[in-house]
Amino acid sequence: MGDPQEADPQSVAEAVRTGMYARDRAAQALGITVEAIGPGFARCRMRVRDDMVQGHATCHGGLTFTLADTAFAYACNAYNRATVALGAEIAFLAPARPGDVLCATARERSRAGRTGIYDVEVENADGALVALFRGTSYETRGAVVAAIGPEQA
Amino acid sequence: MGDPQEADPQSVAEAVRTGMYARDRAAQALGITVEAIGPGFARCRMRVRDDMVQGHATCHGGLTFTLADTAFAYACNAYNRATVALGAEIAFLAPARPGDVLCATARERSRAGRTGIYDVEVENADGALVALFRGTSYETRGAVVAAIGPEQA
Amino acid sequence: MGDPQEADPQSVAEAVRTGMYARDRAAQALGITVEAIGPGFARCRMRVRDDMVQGHATCHGGLTFTLADTAFAYACNAYNRATVALGAEIAFLAPARPGDVLCATARERSRAGRTGIYDVEVENADGALVALFRGTSYETRGAVVAAIGPEQA
Amino acid sequence: MGDPQEADPQSVAEAVRTGMYARDRAAQALGITVEAIGPGFARCRMRVRDDMVQGHATCHGGLTFTLADTAFAYACNAYNRATVALGAEIAFLAPARPGDVLCATARERSRAGRTGIYDVEVENADGALVALFRGTSYETRGAVVAAIGPEQA
Repeated sequence: MGDPQEADPQSVAEAVRTGMYARDRAAQALGITVEAIGPGFARCRMRVRDDMVQGHATCHGGLTFTLADTAFAYACNAYNRATVALGAEIAFLAPARPGDVLCATARERSRAGRTGIYDVEVENADGALVALFRGTSYETRGAVVAAIGPEQA
Repeated sequence: MGDPQEADPQSVAEAVRTGMYARDRAAQALGITVEAIGPGFARCRMRVRDDMVQGHATCHGGLTFTLADTAFAYACNAYNRATVALGAEIAFLAPARPGDVLCATARERSRAGRTGIYDVEVENADGALVALFRGTSYETRGAVVAAIGPEQA
Repeated sequence: MGDPQEADPQSVAEAVRTGMYARDRAAQALGITVEAIGPGFARCRMRVRDDMVQGHATCHGGLTFTLADTAFAYACNAYNRATVALGAEIAFLAPARPGDVLCATARERSRAGRTGIYDVEVENADGALVALFRGTSYETRGAVVAAIGPEQA
Repeated sequence: MGDPQEADPQSVAEAVRTGMYARDRAAQALGITVEAIGPGFARCRMRVRDDMVQGHATCHGGLTFTLADTAFAYACNAYNRATVALGAEIAFLAPARPGDVLCATARERSRAGRTGIYDVEVENADGALVALFRGTSYETRGAVVAAIGPEQA
């Protein structure tokens, strides 16, 4: 990471991605990748597998939520301040099917004091909206990854 | 199922559980079981596995949501009318850890026209609340499983 | 309105605004105005009065919600198909104070079958976000106002 | 209030009600009364007036929300620690009409650190559910009313 005093927000975010993803066994097991990250921003991708389908033969809404929630988590932790979800809500707009590749883009809408609001859009490969997600974050104490970022500076 | 005209609501619900779970590969893959079902009611269970943990070393909120969403799905489909989630919201109250066994109980709060509201409580084995979930359902056309229930009567 | 067969979406929306607002005693009583309307779109304004303050000396969150909910209602009824709110959620980002003029802009995010999702942003006169609102709509039967629009065509 | 060291939770809650309601001009203007209060609990009532009706001739959803939000506010401030709403969501289950007397009962579901979750049920005089509300609270610094309660003890 070099000298923490030189850490710019983008490299802090990237270090968070690396360190957090290494421990993120759920994202790994579901094949979720973190394709982009920045301060208050993240984009994740997941291919809907055959074992992600529920009783109506479409992607389980919980797994669509999990993808969105993952993008939210990386976006709100990207400052290297450990941050958890207080809650979230999701609207399901269109079904996803096995083989679909879903892309979730999380953007910060507000961050003040210890709380924040993040919007996540989930789209399929055609760019059609599959779900809209909104999460509320809460900053706890401590850093996400050691040796970088504002906690050290 | 015998004569559909004899189908009482409880046996309809149980037939839905059997038929829907057989196709519910996501629930199976996550080890979610449907322990009880009735009209507008379901209880599901999931053991938090090591591969369900996120970057903060606790159960990924998306998988807690998935458990709750599964209970919601069985509760609102238990009438054997195909029903989907329009949306849901979740509040995360306490972390869950690997080895915890989570129990999600879904109860119908309202059902009118084609929409319904379901509350789900997620507890750990000590009875502590882990999450509160509220889902909005929408009845589409058709039955969940063939040969039983109100669609045939 | 002239020949309904000539009704274009924008003039349908404007007729809905006129007819709906005349009956909307709550909006009138709160001084809420509907400044702009179009298909799936509306913008409303409200000045925070001294009698809109709660026990912490800022605008009652319920009235901020009411402003947003009003914009949502006009946006989703603008097609002249009677539409109600199934539910909504709001995040409060910053307090509003007596004398502040709040502007709520509602935009359709999705509309399929009988349901829709609308996002509303509430800003103060400085353009700072005061609240984010998301509503779920449900189309009932019938028109909002007589003698125009798709119900007659 | 006498000696603050003697303040029991119920009398703290009642002092909060008195002090907070005196400043709560919005509740007063809408005719909302706070009928009962306790730690993490409040019950409010509102009669739907003719000027609370929206364009579909039923009670404006924003005012139903305002009633629920008021009950939430008293419930979460009842400890005499100044507490604000981070956000809330509402499901509208049945319309209310002019003359209906609505009763909103707020109950704490969780309170940990600085945040809490409160559920509010809104019923009409027949006991039918009109709306379900869930709010997330955040404790700021300071007391709601002076000279009583934990802030002084």
